[in-house]
Amino acid sequence: MRKIYVIGIGAGDPEQVTVQAIRALNEVDVFFLLDKGEAKDELVRLRREILDRYTGEPSYRVAVAQDPPRDRTAADYVGAVAEWHQRRADVYEALIRDEVPDGGTGAVLAWGDPTLYDNTIAMLDTVLARGNVEFDFEVIPGVSSVATLTARHRTSVNQIGKPVQITTGRRLARGFPDGVDDVVVMLDAHTAFADLDESDVDIYWGAYLGTPDEILISGKVSEVAEEIRTRRAEARARKGWIMDTYLLRRRTTD
Amino acid sequence: MRKIYVIGIGAGDPEQVTVQAIRALNEVDVFFLLDKGEAKDELVRLRREILDRYTGEPSYRVAVAQDPPRDRTAADYVGAVAEWHQRRADVYEALIRDEVPDGGTGAVLAWGDPTLYDNTIAMLDTVLARGNVEFDFEVIPGVSSVATLTARHRTSVNQIGKPVQITTGRRLARGFPDGVDDVVVMLDAHTAFADLDESDVDIYWGAYLGTPDEILISGKVSEVAEEIRTRRAEARARKGWIMDTYLLRRRTTD
Repeated sequence: MRKIYVIGIGAGDPEQVTVQAIRALNEVDVFFLLDKGEAKDELVRLRREILDRYTGEPSYRVAVAQDPPRDRTAADYVGAVAEWHQRRADVYEALIRDEVPDGGTGAVLAWGDPTLYDNTIAMLDTVLARGNVEFDFEVIPGVSSVATLTARHRTSVNQIGKPVQITTGRRLARGFPDGVDDVVVMLDAHTAFADLDESDVDIYWGAYLGTPDEILISGKVSEVAEEIRTRRAEARARKGWIMDTYLLRRRTTD
Repeated sequence: MRKIYVIGIGAGDPEQVTVQAIRALNEVDVFFLLDKGEAKDELVRLRREILDRYTGEPSYRVAVAQDPPRDRTAADYVGAVAEWHQRRADVYEALIRDEVPDGGTGAVLAWGDPTLYDNTIAMLDTVLARGNVEFDFEVIPGVSSVATLTARHRTSVNQIGKPVQITTGRRLARGFPDGVDDVVVMLDAHTAFADLDESDVDIYWGAYLGTPDEILISGKVSEVAEEIRTRRAEARARKGWIMDTYLLRRRTTD
């Protein structure tokens, strides 16, 4: 039986790797790496830095596959995502079948925590359900980008005893969610916070968390939205990619 | 200037500590430990095991203070929590003033991640706002109990592209939150999930996550609620304390 690890490696600082993750890294025969194109070469380099630093072997094997492109212009958003999901599952299925020897161990390294807005687990479930290749998998949790964001801002994800919602930029664009005063937003390529029709909301924003390029900005949304948009656009243009996330907090007396 | 670290040490498995946390542990002159009474001696022992394993010093200093008891029977719940918060801040203020030398470093070890349903950061903000003692603080994020729960169940916190709410048992008792199909519940001493008026909700429950006593149960709430209640009550009686959390997931075609 093959074994696949899904290993959380933290938000970007190689020192956010856990002792448990290091132990797992050292059991792996082959690491899978999906190539998303040149713009994200730096993310590949960061992963290799983690492997170089923490694996005891003089050499480790990396199997690189092309990440299938996603049609971001499709009218049918849900259909396009589902189709892309199947093609990405094809890639994982081929990697497991062709690159992991029987009884061997493969691994996927996931930024942040693999159970939060990461689809590797869903991919492996899809591959398992197809039944073409047999394997077992284990998930090593990691320090999430959300925890890193709030730690760097020295605040909490939630206000004491109160709920928090984690959502996407796409959903935030429909308005501040009901029933919560605190919202963490992931995967927002369009700075949806700037279009919120809310006064008295604070934002804690961060990009490239835990790396030398880290940017942190906080304040009232109405006062810092433009600064964030400008800094974000500049950084994205300079580096060719960006990973950012933010917390919105409505201050209440409730 | 004194420095205080708030260090996330993971959900219970000493191997969930990060390299960054280990580096911070080794800069600390004195660790603060709030004694919550004999029943939780095991949690004290687990913290000491982490210090023994990862600090290079032959001996480290621990300053123990009594955790102020909380009046859990008060009619005015919010008032009782606020009053307890002030008394606990008193304890931290005294520890920082009396135990950390000028220019020295103190630390609080937090289970899971210190920014998620942990009040240490709020305590330090309260102490700073009083202005009686000067210090700077830094937060080292950790692997949360939520990430550990979902990793052990090999599922994700959220369904793909969908939001998730993190809330308390006290709030869940008022009903399944609006606007989400996935809810993570923390601090639920009364197994509020068992009283939900919902069919087709799955639960992923875990206790003592990452420790040798770990218990994992999942399934339809209607089918496993009694099993969880029974196992939870037995374990709590045997060990004298319990730390548990769970994810509720409504399966939809949306």
